[in-house]
Amino acid sequence: MARAPLLRTALIARSFTVKPHLFTTSRPFSGSQSKTMLTTQLSEAQVTALRVSQERLAKDLHHSCQWGYGIRWGDGPTDTGMQRLALSEEDKSARDWFIQTMKDLKCNITVDEMGNIFAIRPGRRKDVPATFIGSHLDTQPTGGRYDGILGVLSGVEALKTMDEMGLETEGGVGVVNWTNEEGARFPMSMVSSGVWAECIPLSRAHNLKEVPTVASLPTAGSAPETMKTALQKIDYLGSTKCSYKQIPIAAHFELHIEQGPHLVSAGQRVGVVTAVQAYRWFRVNVIGRDTHTGTTAFEHRADALYAFAKMMVRAREVAAAKGCLASVGIVEAKPGSVNTVPGLVSFSLDIRGPETELVAEVEKELRAEFDAIAAAEGAGIGKPCRVEWTLDFDSPAVKFHPDCIDCVQQSALAVVADADTADPKSLVRPMMSGAGHDSVFTSKRVPTSMIFVPCKDGLSHHPEEFCSADDCATGASVILQAVVRYDRKRFA
Amino acid sequence: MARAPLLRTALIARSFTVKPHLFTTSRPFSGSQSKTMLTTQLSEAQVTALRVSQERLAKDLHHSCQWGYGIRWGDGPTDTGMQRLALSEEDKSARDWFIQTMKDLKCNITVDEMGNIFAIRPGRRKDVPATFIGSHLDTQPTGGRYDGILGVLSGVEALKTMDEMGLETEGGVGVVNWTNEEGARFPMSMVSSGVWAECIPLSRAHNLKEVPTVASLPTAGSAPETMKTALQKIDYLGSTKCSYKQIPIAAHFELHIEQGPHLVSAGQRVGVVTAVQAYRWFRVNVIGRDTHTGTTAFEHRADALYAFAKMMVRAREVAAAKGCLASVGIVEAKPGSVNTVPGLVSFSLDIRGPETELVAEVEKELRAEFDAIAAAEGAGIGKPCRVEWTLDFDSPAVKFHPDCIDCVQQSALAVVADADTADPKSLVRPMMSGAGHDSVFTSKRVPTSMIFVPCKDGLSHHPEEFCSADDCATGASVILQAVVRYDRKRFA
Repeated sequence: MARAPLLRTALIARSFTVKPHLFTTSRPFSGSQSKTMLTTQLSEAQVTALRVSQERLAKDLHHSCQWGYGIRWGDGPTDTGMQRLALSEEDKSARDWFIQTMKDLKCNITVDEMGNIFAIRPGRRKDVPATFIGSHLDTQPTGGRYDGILGVLSGVEALKTMDEMGLETEGGVGVVNWTNEEGARFPMSMVSSGVWAECIPLSRAHNLKEVPTVASLPTAGSAPETMKTALQKIDYLGSTKCSYKQIPIAAHFELHIEQGPHLVSAGQRVGVVTAVQAYRWFRVNVIGRDTHTGTTAFEHRADALYAFAKMMVRAREVAAAKGCLASVGIVEAKPGSVNTVPGLVSFSLDIRGPETELVAEVEKELRAEFDAIAAAEGAGIGKPCRVEWTLDFDSPAVKFHPDCIDCVQQSALAVVADADTADPKSLVRPMMSGAGHDSVFTSKRVPTSMIFVPCKDGLSHHPEEFCSADDCATGASVILQAVVRYDRKRFA
Repeated sequence: MARAPLLRTALIARSFTVKPHLFTTSRPFSGSQSKTMLTTQLSEAQVTALRVSQERLAKDLHHSCQWGYGIRWGDGPTDTGMQRLALSEEDKSARDWFIQTMKDLKCNITVDEMGNIFAIRPGRRKDVPATFIGSHLDTQPTGGRYDGILGVLSGVEALKTMDEMGLETEGGVGVVNWTNEEGARFPMSMVSSGVWAECIPLSRAHNLKEVPTVASLPTAGSAPETMKTALQKIDYLGSTKCSYKQIPIAAHFELHIEQGPHLVSAGQRVGVVTAVQAYRWFRVNVIGRDTHTGTTAFEHRADALYAFAKMMVRAREVAAAKGCLASVGIVEAKPGSVNTVPGLVSFSLDIRGPETELVAEVEKELRAEFDAIAAAEGAGIGKPCRVEWTLDFDSPAVKFHPDCIDCVQQSALAVVADADTADPKSLVRPMMSGAGHDSVFTSKRVPTSMIFVPCKDGLSHHPEEFCSADDCATGASVILQAVVRYDRKRFA
């Protein structure tokens, strides 16, 4: 099958050949661009045949990656990662492009007071909320081209496909770009869908201060922007209240790379995401005592960094024993001098697990273990280290909505039927998301589910994060069908 | 005994009462300020009776601490630490004061191209180099009032005492303030005595870039000064070549707080420093792979920070087994995001031991251990972590000069004889320095030794670093006598 020359070949383990005739999406229902067909009037076979344009999706996706172009890892024109921190100048450019693109598709645009951009392609009925495809355009400081970006671009492509086909929906179909999903610049992930769901107070979100990252401006450390001033600076502080009451959504679908190895190592194509694991984020401080490295025997130290090291080693053991994860992404040791034993260490702790209760158990055990480690370090001088925990974020396990899951499941089976294999159904698997996504918050207010596609080596949050053009298009075709199926279900 | 009201009481474990009559230093030899006595004409009893003014030393020391006033830890006027980074505005003010003070003592001043300040009180003979008392006025970002500062101020006080007594020396007596001894702002400790000793090239020193610390200007991260531009900025880039050939020194004595617990816990008063332990400073990088914390099982990670944690825990075990120290003062994890497993960790490693060979053995063992830890982390995905070592600084064990050690030993015994104890000699101990000092470099070119005095809890590089006014004065009296004895020895 021909691929756009700028794209890398698929890297999945198992051969997957698409039947070429099924990729002919150009106006299968109409010879003109006028809207002539309504979703509720399609036959099941017509829905099953819906496909996006792989080439156009790839072209748009990489076009949008010109803003925030990151670390190069290969020779190809798109072999770079992304550095597009939320509300940066690069993010503004990507947002401007997104709005212009959606306006060209005759969408109505709403920007709310968190900078979330809602683009709605009106349906036949004007009195009902739209079904949304949503994700985010911001990236990690050393991120890739697919995490979040594929989700928004699949929405753009779904609308382009519908337009090209002349397909009208009963309710509107929207695409939403949620602000600062990564939490990399402003340290609260999914913060803007959280405000929309009224789970996070607007003032708390607006007052978040940026943290310095590798992609930050030099001023991030000395004169950090708040989220509100950053929104103002790039002119994305909208006037519409950020709330599910003010900006209603009928349902939320999100396409995402898996960010894990399950699909790619099993040679599968689509994950039907039924749930999101629980997680809690903490800031942990270890307070010891600064002292000279050359003159202070180990037994006279209260070395906060040594205590941290023991804690991190132990955290993995405790979490693994319960089938959970515990990770440290940020660590700061003060005062930060070669010959001074650090008296203060501050680190992030991210605990995840399939059940909310399991995460709580790991936390409880680690609190006791960390206290014991701290008590031992500095005991020789009667000044043991001590530990302080602050809960930054708590996301209980989420179960997605059965109606949305059904739509995704049917669509996934329909799309993988293109595969040249004896058992296409085996290419689809139900799965749980390890990472949080904006869908976690939308699911608190409206029916929601997600679609996963494989990524190379299960790698994400890394410049080499990669999803083949094939896999991107498969996911986008699934989300297109899922939205159409949901519209048909709503107005059957 | 009366103490200056602004000073805390001595905190040593054992009672130490000074015989008051011996503290009368005011002109024991002369009623006028004219120089009437020559060191070589003094009797041994007159040398033994030499004492500085405790009150004046304390007053000058705390006066000089107004520049770079640090973290408050108590209610008293001098209960603060110091934040006086090398070549900062605060350092400039302290330098300006030092020069003016030495000019008032009729010293000749030379500032060399590293900003080292040499102040010489001329002796009777003009054709010989001066004997120096030296240390540094810069501090750690969260340092105290004694490390370095006491060394320079004891020199000031020794000269004031000689002046007041009308004591002339055969060779001159100098006081030198060495630049950036701490290596806290420009990351190479003792760099300027190192250039003077021609052990460090001038260009390497001038090109050192400042590293951000808690006391740094916000620009340290984004637009770091080099040492040369920082010298220019505060007008301390002297024109004299920084070399022991250009600025000869007859001998170098240095008074310093012990920065360890031996003297204070034994209730001893003076350490006669005979040697300095060996140490090596490394920058170690661990290269793993950035990946998502929520979606990547432990066995699929190449977590550079987890590898670091295991390394740090192991480093203490390996060093302790050989009677050495291994410490990490700086650690940086990138990209530095809560939900990204760090793919790159860079840390400082400071290995110290009583013998050069022992330090080399610890290094060798740790290189192998770190490689093994790195190889295990990421093995599950065939992309193990790897380790890179860079040697930043290598200071072999140093033995001080017997002539200087003798002078210090005799002086120490003379001064502690004031103590109201049956066995004053027990208050003096020979010892090894755990920390590096400018005396390490001077010892490579000229006879050198050091004097230690106790500090509270053995604590240094910390705002609460504390040396009683008694102990400061004891050390200063020892260095005064040592310089006089050395002068007599030279010109006997």
